Amino acid sequence: MLRSARFLNGFLSGTVCSAVAFYFYNRADFKETSSDGQTKIQTKETYLSEVVTLDLETAKQLKGTDILKYGTPDRGSDARLYYNHVLCYDQAKKIPVWVAELITKSDLTGPANRQHSKFKMDPTLDEFFSSHNKDFLGSGWSRGHMAPAGNNKFSQQAMDETFYLTNIVPQDISNNAGFWNKLEIYVRDLTNRFSEVRVISGPLTLPTVKEGSKQFVNYEVIGNNSVTVPTHLFKVVTAENPQQPDSPIAVGAFIVPNQPIQGSAQLTQYQVKLEDLEKTAGVYFLPRLPPSKRVDLCSVDSCQLISQEALELYFIGRKLENAKTVERVDSVWKDLERRHLIPDDYLIDLYKKKRESLSTEP
Amino acid sequence: MLRSARFLNGFLSGTVCSAVAFYFYNRADFKETSSDGQTKIQTKETYLSEVVTLDLETAKQLKGTDILKYGTPDRGSDARLYYNHVLCYDQAKKIPVWVAELITKSDLTGPANRQHSKFKMDPTLDEFFSSHNKDFLGSGWSRGHMAPAGNNKFSQQAMDETFYLTNIVPQDISNNAGFWNKLEIYVRDLTNRFSEVRVISGPLTLPTVKEGSKQFVNYEVIGNNSVTVPTHLFKVVTAENPQQPDSPIAVGAFIVPNQPIQGSAQLTQYQVKLEDLEKTAGVYFLPRLPPSKRVDLCSVDSCQLISQEALELYFIGRKLENAKTVERVDSVWKDLERRHLIPDDYLIDLYKKKRESLSTEP
Repeated sequence: MLRSARFLNGFLSGTVCSAVAFYFYNRADFKETSSDGQTKIQTKETYLSEVVTLDLETAKQLKGTDILKYGTPDRGSDARLYYNHVLCYDQAKKIPVWVAELITKSDLTGPANRQHSKFKMDPTLDEFFSSHNKDFLGSGWSRGHMAPAGNNKFSQQAMDETFYLTNIVPQDISNNAGFWNKLEIYVRDLTNRFSEVRVISGPLTLPTVKEGSKQFVNYEVIGNNSVTVPTHLFKVVTAENPQQPDSPIAVGAFIVPNQPIQGSAQLTQYQVKLEDLEKTAGVYFLPRLPPSKRVDLCSVDSCQLISQEALELYFIGRKLENAKTVERVDSVWKDLERRHLIPDDYLIDLYKKKRESLSTEP
Repeated sequence: MLRSARFLNGFLSGTVCSAVAFYFYNRADFKETSSDGQTKIQTKETYLSEVVTLDLETAKQLKGTDILKYGTPDRGSDARLYYNHVLCYDQAKKIPVWVAELITKSDLTGPANRQHSKFKMDPTLDEFFSSHNKDFLGSGWSRGHMAPAGNNKFSQQAMDETFYLTNIVPQDISNNAGFWNKLEIYVRDLTNRFSEVRVISGPLTLPTVKEGSKQFVNYEVIGNNSVTVPTHLFKVVTAENPQQPDSPIAVGAFIVPNQPIQGSAQLTQYQVKLEDLEKTAGVYFLPRLPPSKRVDLCSVDSCQLISQEALELYFIGRKLENAKTVERVDSVWKDLERRHLIPDDYLIDLYKKKRESLSTEP
């Protein structure tokens, strides 16, 4: 596999001299296509006697290769590619490090239906380091998407892939259905004002416990695989209209506690400096976007979340979409009326159409 | 920089078709030597219209590149090369993930002296993600080496590099000077029976707190940079005589709590299955050493630590080596006599020579 490609690249970046044989020896292990399996392994002593004639950089690299005779310890790749998201997985915590998406308006409509998707182990991840559905069962924590299913209406496959457990963290259920959901809807809504919206989401385990002057990180782990329950979740949002030349890129960073959050809470309460998030996460999230090209998202856009009532109407809409019988459609609609929610035209239209199509089915 | 080389390699591993332009666009960002800065950025919509004619693998890769328009979020490299050790650093925890060494007998003697080394920030690490000496000050935790200074007597530079804070974790001081020290001495002692000894050391944060059926990870963080105090430390040792054909490779894995440990404790009490350590650390430590080639270290070697008395004599030796005046030499020797420790020939010889050389100095 290509797992140590970066190491090899570093290896090659010095003056190589007599290192060439080692390079091919290593390639033989890393790339299955190589046929050079006969190259002899040299001991460190041999290196050392050679190293004297080499520059220090090369010497270090030669010894590095011998120290790592049994491979570079492998904590997993930096980027795993899916149909519509990219993620980095934390093999120790059994949750992602970050999950990146690009959302455009066209992704948000289409035939995909979450009823057809199932939470399952990522077939591309070594099961040894995976969380399992069983770990979540009875834990009290919901399976929270980082790349949301709802950003992938355009493709059932893209939606299905968001249900891989590599994209899932143990999340407070009220947070998942409430504040975090509103944040996801806000990010989707940005596509009405920006043609390209990128978002990087992920979990954090932050120090939350103080004893005197001491600080502690404290988090639960669930199931046989000790899946980390994050203390917080983050989103880094970039929004832009690249067709407008030299228009700045709006950037917002948010850290949200993984717990129930009041319906009245504002998104700006959870905004943080991108740099502070990067420092605590240990990740540069936008390494190729210089600070000079960024503007504050919440100063060029509202950062206004939808109201509790609008969220409830959103859920009514989802229930209507997923209803499989006329009785279910009617029951959902009665629930709306009982709660004195005022449906908009879209919802009224959806109700009528759904009722009609289910009535005419055999 | 080459930070996203692995991603690019993955990118290239599919059928590339019309992806070539993107590849060079990306190269321009990753490799400063490229002169292709004029390639236009295409939007995801353009990709999608092209993707229809491409295989799924390529489609995914094209979208991945666009999702990561502002770079692959960077959590740091897998392997950082030094003169005599290789390590992977955890930018979130501000301590290493693993530190690998190759120890041979010749590394263990030589002119290097730890009195000339200073704990300092690793000049090759971004300061933004580094721990600082100040973080440890007054924290109650010592600065524990993962690659020990004592494995690098052959070279002052190699020894100095083990004092970079990338190689350091907050360690219980009694553990550092006691049990962990004995383990380090045991590993060094293996070079008397095996010509090549490799060791991978590192910190862990394991679940240690139980509340009913729930499990929690709880650890302190110190200083302004919230440096993680690990709950445990590990070593993976391989020992071999490669000049003997087909001789198996002895492998031992150990997890030691980061706390004071009784003088009578045996190393075998802390031996674990390599696989269990790998699962909890999230790292395959020996990806190129198949299990069929491994034998249990503690079944082919003693795994016997030196006694408390021998450890104390070892410290007397170090104090003698570092003594700068005859008075200091005499005071160290009186301490040995007062504690009724019985010096071996090496120590008696060291005492005499040190006393003589300091007496004759001007």
